[in-house]
Amino acid sequence: MYNYPNSLLKLINEILKLPGIGPKMAERISLFLLKKRGEYVNELSVALGEIKNINFCRNCFNVADKSVCSICDDGTRDKEYICVVEGPEDIVTIERTGKYNGYYHTLHGLINPLNNIMPENLKINELVERLKKQDTVKELILAINHTVEGDATSLYIKREIQEAGLNLKITRLAKGLPTGSDIRYADEITLGQAILERKEI
Amino acid sequence: MYNYPNSLLKLINEILKLPGIGPKMAERISLFLLKKRGEYVNELSVALGEIKNINFCRNCFNVADKSVCSICDDGTRDKEYICVVEGPEDIVTIERTGKYNGYYHTLHGLINPLNNIMPENLKINELVERLKKQDTVKELILAINHTVEGDATSLYIKREIQEAGLNLKITRLAKGLPTGSDIRYADEITLGQAILERKEI
Repeated sequence: MYNYPNSLLKLINEILKLPGIGPKMAERISLFLLKKRGEYVNELSVALGEIKNINFCRNCFNVADKSVCSICDDGTRDKEYICVVEGPEDIVTIERTGKYNGYYHTLHGLINPLNNIMPENLKINELVERLKKQDTVKELILAINHTVEGDATSLYIKREIQEAGLNLKITRLAKGLPTGSDIRYADEITLGQAILERKEI
Repeated sequence: MYNYPNSLLKLINEILKLPGIGPKMAERISLFLLKKRGEYVNELSVALGEIKNINFCRNCFNVADKSVCSICDDGTRDKEYICVVEGPEDIVTIERTGKYNGYYHTLHGLINPLNNIMPENLKINELVERLKKQDTVKELILAINHTVEGDATSLYIKREIQEAGLNLKITRLAKGLPTGSDIRYADEITLGQAILERKEI
């Protein structure tokens, strides 16, 4: 049966491996690349080549163009706080809020045995070792999702820190109603939590 | 304010130019590429490089690894039919039905003045020239969407062919209810058309 030329099929297959891209989308992107080739494909290839120069920070595992990321390199931040996140994208999101001025630690995932992501695949040991050396830290903020995987990861980190004999406050982000949301459309777990954790005004 | 390293931002920007990719998705794909680098990124770069070897068929403008595509190169097909499509992806879709054995012509878009796509940006002149030379063709099947753009393109093609003094049948794909669809959920235009074009069983 008729199909695309082999080199186009190969590109479709490679693009299909990207996260969140289905077969139709891979086809559409490949044909777009085919039409744009020359100008755009060259720039994309250069950009792909240049990410070889990006490392993960040896301290917090954020993305970095040096051996240490620009946040760890910034001595003016509050050394009492480390905020633990799932991935580097969360750091950008939290920085945008302007509500946090401490340091970070990127786990690169959450514990998920069904997808074969076990504690040893994450940067949890590195976090405990870092906390042992860095005695300025008073609070560890776990800014990870309120999901089964997030809960499991939080409990695991808490236990590891207690077993290492480290004495610091461990917190998670508040559960509650999103700003601007409608109470009628909130799920019962979120709404229940928001009632239990209501605040005096 | 904190942001990703420059080379990562550059990659995110390049990926954002792909069709159907929003900012969050571009970020996710870029960070995925960053993690996978080495193994996967090399294969993707090779695949991107290899599409330089793909051309558009000089006859029908389908994708081709030679100067003529494998369909135009196939002498066993029915020379009485040319099926006009918007893009190369439609050819693969139509071939999968197994209901068509003629040749194709790819327009590479539909007339859309709002997006600055005018008849001269499409392969319509090339179609008329091809039909002038290829006198075996008896029917031109316009397999293009039943949309405003598709209707405008169909009318334009019909007029051009008549002005060129070519005498051939021009058809469009049947409008009607999709197989397996529920009449209650059909839109009124489709349902109305299906009533008007009802068939005796």
